Amino acid sequence: MTLPSLGSPDRIAAAARRVMNRCDELARVSAADQGIERVYLSAEHARVNRLAAEWMRELGMRTRQDAAGNQLGRLDVLDPSGAVISDAPALLIGSHLDTVPDAGRYDGIVGVLMGLEIVRLLRVPAGDSDSAWRSPFPFAIEVVAFSDEEGTRFGKALLGSSAVAGLWNDDWWALTDAAGTTLRQAFLEFGLDPGRIGEAARRPDSLVGYLEAHIEQGPELDRRGEALAVVSSIASARRFQLVVEGEARHAGGTPYDMRRDALLGASEAALAIERICRTEHHIIGTVGQFEAFPGAVNIVPGETHFSLDLRGEFDGERDRVFDEISRELDGIMGRRGLRWRSREVHNAAAVMCAPLLQDVVREGIGATGAPGASDPATIFSRAGHDAMTIGAITDVGMLFLRNPDGISHHPDEAVSAADVAAGIRALAESVVLLGHERR
Amino acid sequence: MTLPSLGSPDRIAAAARRVMNRCDELARVSAADQGIERVYLSAEHARVNRLAAEWMRELGMRTRQDAAGNQLGRLDVLDPSGAVISDAPALLIGSHLDTVPDAGRYDGIVGVLMGLEIVRLLRVPAGDSDSAWRSPFPFAIEVVAFSDEEGTRFGKALLGSSAVAGLWNDDWWALTDAAGTTLRQAFLEFGLDPGRIGEAARRPDSLVGYLEAHIEQGPELDRRGEALAVVSSIASARRFQLVVEGEARHAGGTPYDMRRDALLGASEAALAIERICRTEHHIIGTVGQFEAFPGAVNIVPGETHFSLDLRGEFDGERDRVFDEISRELDGIMGRRGLRWRSREVHNAAAVMCAPLLQDVVREGIGATGAPGASDPATIFSRAGHDAMTIGAITDVGMLFLRNPDGISHHPDEAVSAADVAAGIRALAESVVLLGHERR
Repeated sequence: MTLPSLGSPDRIAAAARRVMNRCDELARVSAADQGIERVYLSAEHARVNRLAAEWMRELGMRTRQDAAGNQLGRLDVLDPSGAVISDAPALLIGSHLDTVPDAGRYDGIVGVLMGLEIVRLLRVPAGDSDSAWRSPFPFAIEVVAFSDEEGTRFGKALLGSSAVAGLWNDDWWALTDAAGTTLRQAFLEFGLDPGRIGEAARRPDSLVGYLEAHIEQGPELDRRGEALAVVSSIASARRFQLVVEGEARHAGGTPYDMRRDALLGASEAALAIERICRTEHHIIGTVGQFEAFPGAVNIVPGETHFSLDLRGEFDGERDRVFDEISRELDGIMGRRGLRWRSREVHNAAAVMCAPLLQDVVREGIGATGAPGASDPATIFSRAGHDAMTIGAITDVGMLFLRNPDGISHHPDEAVSAADVAAGIRALAESVVLLGHERR
Repeated sequence: MTLPSLGSPDRIAAAARRVMNRCDELARVSAADQGIERVYLSAEHARVNRLAAEWMRELGMRTRQDAAGNQLGRLDVLDPSGAVISDAPALLIGSHLDTVPDAGRYDGIVGVLMGLEIVRLLRVPAGDSDSAWRSPFPFAIEVVAFSDEEGTRFGKALLGSSAVAGLWNDDWWALTDAAGTTLRQAFLEFGLDPGRIGEAARRPDSLVGYLEAHIEQGPELDRRGEALAVVSSIASARRFQLVVEGEARHAGGTPYDMRRDALLGASEAALAIERICRTEHHIIGTVGQFEAFPGAVNIVPGETHFSLDLRGEFDGERDRVFDEISRELDGIMGRRGLRWRSREVHNAAAVMCAPLLQDVVREGIGATGAPGASDPATIFSRAGHDAMTIGAITDVGMLFLRNPDGISHHPDEAVSAADVAAGIRALAESVVLLGHERR
């Protein structure tokens, strides 16, 4: 088997420029007059799928839109006679093309477009034709553009990759968007058959793995002054609804030492959660909802409700921190004569990136020769990604690109062409190394 | 002029038992099947007014229900010929008969019923008739049962005494209750003429002063082990609506040092308000309303709104404490990269009890000979009372009765018959002393 050369720095720089230009082109496909908004099963979704399919076909890939509206292109493996080995396993490379409202132009998108450039760098001619190409590896390369990662339209994220992972839940058909359209209706209007959703699911033995490049959505690489990082795992939040109970009493007649003020107990709790999580390197806790009851200006609050979103690189560490928070809350509430309780409303295990895929991504970064690249940062993702769901059916690996100031889901979201070039080089090297491993 | 004897301890004990029994009787006049609820301009309001009027007439008082539904009874001054001096100034003694929902049976009520017992102790026969009575002082004694102190029905407190003080505001006619009935409609349904509301107002020169006995609505006397206290002033709250502004960001992607979390800043503020006010003897601050926005489980709060109710014995002290709170909030918000602002929504000056009326109440307590009575506690009222509004037209004085555990606005609200007896004795002595002063 011949391995492709990765080409000159100029060729990679040109690939990065193409990625940046196409990010700009896709940014113009928006439902909003100002800013970018591209949601699941919309006219904009159809348009970007058509654009992506066109770019895939230009690279000699076979394209299809699957039963969940994900757009795929496949660079096939051929047998010695030049016939397509249609049941060859595939390495998936990709991310998503949908956005939040008033989005940036790189979150998800840059990972799909980098996948196309990896194919361009690694494909080899199939026979003598200039227009036919094949995978140089014993596996096909599929670039996938997931259709719904953000969950903007129906409130449920990762719908596209959930269909691919065989995790589709029929309860979701009744989800509605802001206009009252159900997910089922939206499927039909988009031209998809809800009855065939199962066909989007991939069998684990049909896959080699999944690689995803993504902007970091955090400031870690920017602070280190490095372009690229290996992702160790994708944290998943445990979420709780907490209630602190005290006694509602008259604000005028109740001196401090007779108060059992549920707001002050909950305020201490929120600050304790911050203090505990700040001292942990790999944990982040957020109190996003918080309200005091009965909520009258002259009544000492008798009850306070708040939420806790707790994310960690490792489930065990995250759970230990929750236990520590619980002990701290016992102390606070005990001192104040309050009671508290919590109800867990969400608990998903962290998805670990496969050690082999972490290794090839790390070596791929090393091959860029950039400062720090020989010992690149290994960080965990605090945000969710398609790789979380795909992790249910195959090994996943992720590469993070520097994200200035960590701003994402915002028009100011950015990534540099130089970092995209480094990322393309690293990801292509990773695929080559994986090809070696799978030989 | 002959001064009445205050009667034997047995007679005063009987008076206190009558007060306790009547509190029980009035507690049965309730709109609720369980618990006590008696609101302004309701059928229950009419029933307790009729009962009070009956009790007033039994004492030889002339009764009337005024244009705001307050029930009054007058023990007149007679001239040497036995004719009523209808323009003699009056000493008002009383409190209110309306309640909060699920109320106790003493708040307000005990003050009205004690007023009746003062009349019983101090009245003297008018001529030879056993059924005609007169005031022994150069002023009439009027017992007043205010109709709306709590503001339960229309959300605006002190409506009854505001009418008497000439402070009625025509904007109030449009206030509605939970069923959508306006205050104007409720007046008509009760049989009152809104166009005559001005007739309830009393001229300052028609009044000698106002004395009110009330349960403390706080635990101070219970802690001291004393039955009675002189009230120095009725604190009035300054109320503020505060807003803390930060930046709403994704809970996953935003590390702690990049967060500008409006909830955590506001939590620190609530705790700082508690800490500052706890160190002050005569100030109490309450954060009763508190809510974080946008209020999503996975978004760092970008804004938090909360209320502050700040009460103090002295306006200057209270305002100084608000300045201190403001400086503390500047520091907290500065450290956290947040902004804050406040809007004052209520500011009423504290009402000072008149020095003369404080003196006679203090001497009245001393006359009970109870432990501590020779140097009784002088405390300020953190809760509002009818005396606040009446303070606009005449001197006011208040006597507080021990309130076990400081529980009020609750079915467990209590006062002992022995303390009521002491209160009756003290208040009667106070009126006698005032009679000496006015001779």
